[in-house]
Amino acid sequence: MKSVIACGLISGTSRDGVDVAIVEISGRYPHCRIKLIHGETIPFPRWLRRRLLKPGDEFTALEIAALNFVLGEFFAQAVLKALAACRLKPQDIAVIGNHGQTLLHRPGGIRFGPRKVRATLQVGSGAVIEVLTGIPTVSDFRSADIAAGGEGAPLVPIFDFAILASRTKTRVALNIGGISNVTVLPKGRDITKVEGFDCGPGNCMIDFAVRYLTGGRKSYDVGGRLAQKGKPDADEISRILSHPYLDRKPPKSTGWNEFGEHFTLRSIRRMQKRGMSIADMISTLTQATVEAIAGSIRRFVLRRMAVDEIIVTGGGVHNPVIMAGLAQRLPECRLLRGEDVGISSDWKEACAFAFLGVGAKKLHRGVGAKKLHRVSR
Amino acid sequence: MKSVIACGLISGTSRDGVDVAIVEISGRYPHCRIKLIHGETIPFPRWLRRRLLKPGDEFTALEIAALNFVLGEFFAQAVLKALAACRLKPQDIAVIGNHGQTLLHRPGGIRFGPRKVRATLQVGSGAVIEVLTGIPTVSDFRSADIAAGGEGAPLVPIFDFAILASRTKTRVALNIGGISNVTVLPKGRDITKVEGFDCGPGNCMIDFAVRYLTGGRKSYDVGGRLAQKGKPDADEISRILSHPYLDRKPPKSTGWNEFGEHFTLRSIRRMQKRGMSIADMISTLTQATVEAIAGSIRRFVLRRMAVDEIIVTGGGVHNPVIMAGLAQRLPECRLLRGEDVGISSDWKEACAFAFLGVGAKKLHRGVGAKKLHRVSR
Repeated sequence: MKSVIACGLISGTSRDGVDVAIVEISGRYPHCRIKLIHGETIPFPRWLRRRLLKPGDEFTALEIAALNFVLGEFFAQAVLKALAACRLKPQDIAVIGNHGQTLLHRPGGIRFGPRKVRATLQVGSGAVIEVLTGIPTVSDFRSADIAAGGEGAPLVPIFDFAILASRTKTRVALNIGGISNVTVLPKGRDITKVEGFDCGPGNCMIDFAVRYLTGGRKSYDVGGRLAQKGKPDADEISRILSHPYLDRKPPKSTGWNEFGEHFTLRSIRRMQKRGMSIADMISTLTQATVEAIAGSIRRFVLRRMAVDEIIVTGGGVHNPVIMAGLAQRLPECRLLRGEDVGISSDWKEACAFAFLGVGAKKLHRGVGAKKLHRVSR
Repeated sequence: MKSVIACGLISGTSRDGVDVAIVEISGRYPHCRIKLIHGETIPFPRWLRRRLLKPGDEFTALEIAALNFVLGEFFAQAVLKALAACRLKPQDIAVIGNHGQTLLHRPGGIRFGPRKVRATLQVGSGAVIEVLTGIPTVSDFRSADIAAGGEGAPLVPIFDFAILASRTKTRVALNIGGISNVTVLPKGRDITKVEGFDCGPGNCMIDFAVRYLTGGRKSYDVGGRLAQKGKPDADEISRILSHPYLDRKPPKSTGWNEFGEHFTLRSIRRMQKRGMSIADMISTLTQATVEAIAGSIRRFVLRRMAVDEIIVTGGGVHNPVIMAGLAQRLPECRLLRGEDVGISSDWKEACAFAFLGVGAKKLHRGVGAKKLHRVSR
């Protein structure tokens, strides 16, 4: 069982920085064991973050071209910083799996001339990363997946299968990043039975509202304290839950364009009109997020099968209001954190892209390319 | 001397289609022998071409995302069509070198927040090509070159060196595509002495004017017939030649944004005001192009060294007015076409990207990455 060291990079829908994971991967792909060597989040400087916080279709061509380089350089420096922290050299790393920063994700299609084009757009050039680190870099996983007939998201299911699928227990891997997504892993460890989809909002509504309502002084609801202090408003929760995405059947994926700034701002304005306090507003958005996640799992998973364990990762595990809310609404499943089964809640997605990078280096060749590149399920 | 078969793809500044070359490459990189197996130009459908013909900074984010997929698919189909024409299978091809369609090329920098960012932007996703053909695909050569400290253009010099550098003759390789560029290959076959730069306009002004003035009925001046019929206007020629790019010292590179639609349209309007005929206008633009090329070679090459041969490739070789004009203005050099020394005038650039693709697959690793990825000189 030869092992390689790989690096994963992901900059999520919250657009606030990049997660780097350095991992050791052994075993035959995709039946691998993954050991985290080092994980680190490197925040974007303020000027860059500010330029990233707008709807994807408002970026100009010059901004896209510049961002592709600025982020490519930033990601390369992040890799070199992470390597220095664990005393590794670029030569020790077999591959970088680079997710990139998503600006647009439109698997439903963009009208373009006579066609409707399914597309996704990530910036943070792999060529730039490769030159500045000297490490082979694989990018554009979401584009490859869409070209192969997938939704382009979520991409993590194959990684969840590798590290979490069990012979005896049906598990659901739930990641609560900006967007929340699940991978359903029916017992028996059969890769053809794996499913994954985006539930809807993760921390994106809450984070945006905290940042907006505190004038940028806070960037998220630390420890869920605001949510705990406030009182959720049932009317506004049902308005949020009437978002048509939540009713759509999987496979499906979503992003910033559906649950980001525009959507959350409309909700905030409605609540402000009714004179609600900041704590009440955050509490409302937090409960709506919990309902969106729990409701998705109930309607699209639990109606078809019993689930033994839900393993939660991503920033959302640090919000006790979200965790308690999920436990209360899904009492028939055991709710665990990534750490309870030996995986890092904070670095799981970055680890997944290191793993996908190793996989992509092995795939390539010949006739099966379309089947092999299709990662979303 | 093991040989591999590789594929090169380039869609140039004229934005009218893609050139595909299938080549056999043998020898140790970069000291290779290159044999053209098949070359083909596949024109874009009209609706797509129309959408490509505007200044790069006017593309929206949605258009960029859609084009990345539409062109990725188009390029993949072009590769499969070319393979079928020479009875090869995807498995026979070691690598695709994908230039992509340039939308923006700003090695001088884009103002972005507190920074000036040197950038270039090509669309036509390598990930999409790779999935749809099953062939490993290398893209973003220009980005890699800029990240490594180059100008991002021209990239062909290393290829010119491989196939044209001579022990006994000083040669200049001149390619007249949309933009014209030269590679200077001093005798002695010393790779450190190679230089390359973009002269300025190639066929771009002429082609745009023909298309514009014929309402799209013609797309270029077939056989230089309009230029031959008309009478060039000396005043307008000197106005065009006063473009500041032409005075800048190499290394330098340019593109559509400097000599494309906007620039040519201003020139056409001036000539129309003076009541010039279509033939006179095309004749004027053709002579200005000849002067721009010959002037660059004289000022930036011949002042420093004697040149034995100028080897011309690209669409410009088919325009006898351009060829005769160059021969007249550069009498001390022997003017040859690519075919005279065994290389294809029409497919040279596509061959070069097959060659660069093979090189990039070998480079990658470790400390020397920055040096190795720097291809422009």
